[in-house]
Amino acid sequence: MKDHHLRQNKLTKQWVIYAPSRRKRPRDFRAGQTALNVPGHDPGCPFCPGNEPVLGRVIEEAPGPAPHGWSTRVIPNKYPALSPVLDPRRFSVGIYLAVQGHGRHEVVIETPWHDRDIPDMSLPEVEAVIEAYHSRHLALMRADGTILTIIFRNRGPGAGASLVHPHSQIIALAVAPPHVRWREEEAQRYFDEWGRCCLCDVLDYEMQAEERLLFENGSFAAFVPFAAEVPFEVWIVPKRHQADFAEIRDHEKPDLAQALRYVLGRLDRRLHRPDYNYVIHSSTQYRAGEPQVHWYLQILPRLTTRAGFEIGSGIAINPSIPEEDAAFLRGEG
Amino acid sequence: MKDHHLRQNKLTKQWVIYAPSRRKRPRDFRAGQTALNVPGHDPGCPFCPGNEPVLGRVIEEAPGPAPHGWSTRVIPNKYPALSPVLDPRRFSVGIYLAVQGHGRHEVVIETPWHDRDIPDMSLPEVEAVIEAYHSRHLALMRADGTILTIIFRNRGPGAGASLVHPHSQIIALAVAPPHVRWREEEAQRYFDEWGRCCLCDVLDYEMQAEERLLFENGSFAAFVPFAAEVPFEVWIVPKRHQADFAEIRDHEKPDLAQALRYVLGRLDRRLHRPDYNYVIHSSTQYRAGEPQVHWYLQILPRLTTRAGFEIGSGIAINPSIPEEDAAFLRGEG
Repeated sequence: MKDHHLRQNKLTKQWVIYAPSRRKRPRDFRAGQTALNVPGHDPGCPFCPGNEPVLGRVIEEAPGPAPHGWSTRVIPNKYPALSPVLDPRRFSVGIYLAVQGHGRHEVVIETPWHDRDIPDMSLPEVEAVIEAYHSRHLALMRADGTILTIIFRNRGPGAGASLVHPHSQIIALAVAPPHVRWREEEAQRYFDEWGRCCLCDVLDYEMQAEERLLFENGSFAAFVPFAAEVPFEVWIVPKRHQADFAEIRDHEKPDLAQALRYVLGRLDRRLHRPDYNYVIHSSTQYRAGEPQVHWYLQILPRLTTRAGFEIGSGIAINPSIPEEDAAFLRGEG
Repeated sequence: MKDHHLRQNKLTKQWVIYAPSRRKRPRDFRAGQTALNVPGHDPGCPFCPGNEPVLGRVIEEAPGPAPHGWSTRVIPNKYPALSPVLDPRRFSVGIYLAVQGHGRHEVVIETPWHDRDIPDMSLPEVEAVIEAYHSRHLALMRADGTILTIIFRNRGPGAGASLVHPHSQIIALAVAPPHVRWREEEAQRYFDEWGRCCLCDVLDYEMQAEERLLFENGSFAAFVPFAAEVPFEVWIVPKRHQADFAEIRDHEKPDLAQALRYVLGRLDRRLHRPDYNYVIHSSTQYRAGEPQVHWYLQILPRLTTRAGFEIGSGIAINPSIPEEDAAFLRGEG
């Protein structure tokens, strides 16, 4: 077992992906480099126009204005964690369970411009990013064996990004992560008890309480969650109940683009371009359409370090107070 | 709610600790500082001899040789995440649940010597550290309201350590972390199915398979786990079944000290003093003595960065292969 595969932790049932090819990834962050001294085009960047031969196959491309003619591109990750050619059947290794690394790993190049991050984009440019997420989410959820699609963005070396050029990633998994099942089971219990979706109730409460609210438009609300794990954590939640990201409607996409650009812009301005991760928590296959799960986008700035206590307990220690973080991001701090 | 308290994430039931006083912690890591240029005594270090007035109350102290006269000291954390004077009763905040930050947060100063890390210590010195863990674990598990004790060590700034002087921490929690409950429930299911403790089975298998084994003595075995989450993860597991760390016997402590010193020494030598966390996974109150849970010490070097995919799925991507990591640590690489 030296190629891509997954192994199950027998104690926790958690899967781990083994991807030795990812050791060879390029890294273009240099020590102390901030995003302030990034050029608009980097001839050495694999995602910049002119490097198409390095890039290889383009899965899909959205048209854009001259000089480049494209706005977003989706490509296979060159150092994938998973691959569609591998066998999804589990096998035993002694007392353990393993499986080949079946799945898909794609990259969304968000713009032809090396230095144009989401807050610098026009709204139609951000919409094109959302559109790429949605189109690939639909395709990947229909692909053979997919159980869950994770759409995420790592910004900055502290958040695990290896390349500067604005991009997101999508991974289609053929195993069900226990963490996601637990969240879905809690949602089921809440629904069975209260007869409502938990996140719908949270959303209603946050829009009424206002103290953690950052932004609202017709289809989305953004707020610092009541039990934020890290300083300046933000959730962007669709107002209309929808279990799966697949269910977003066309007229809601500009609203998501607006909410996302607003929140990321506030983070950049108020916190001096912090490293962050964001991830869309959508639902597993066969759960789409259910009344109790509700997708949301979670943004986690990387200002603190997870340490031994968090590893042992799963409980985060947050030195920040969510209401104060929200006020600071709104510009009141 | 601006003082220490915990809040529950309504979606995941996960608690988060809010500890605003921890913003003011001293940090004595300077950029690029490695442990190689650390002095034996630092007059500015709060844990070094001579700084007792800064230190405040000493909870317990183990005697040691001249010139300092002590070997380990346990003190209350000056920037605690939790405090015993706070009320452990839950209260509602709108639709949410919260509780004051009831609990305890202690520091084990492992040695009077600023630069004497565990691999540099004599075996009796490491034993004194284990003895301090055990004595405080017993006392804290008996303290009012404790549900779980987390004993952990953060080494290096990348692992969340703020001070260089060798130290560990102990947190006594008055809430049950869902992550720990899940592990215990999985252990219960395994026991009900197989009639055995899962970690006993894993241990037997690893000692027989040998390919991931690093070290073995009369009471402990150390190995890279089959589904290691990160490169060079190591578990140190007691051979005799014991649910709770409280159950370790006196004659087993030198064996744990030997195993720990060996493994940390191998990591330091083979990986050039990496930052790491270790944590003792013990059992929650009322589970002690049960046949299905089994404590272990988990060491996680911080060579990779958790990113958006890990946050979304809970699934780690490990670029390393556990059998190769074990061979490398044994010196075969």
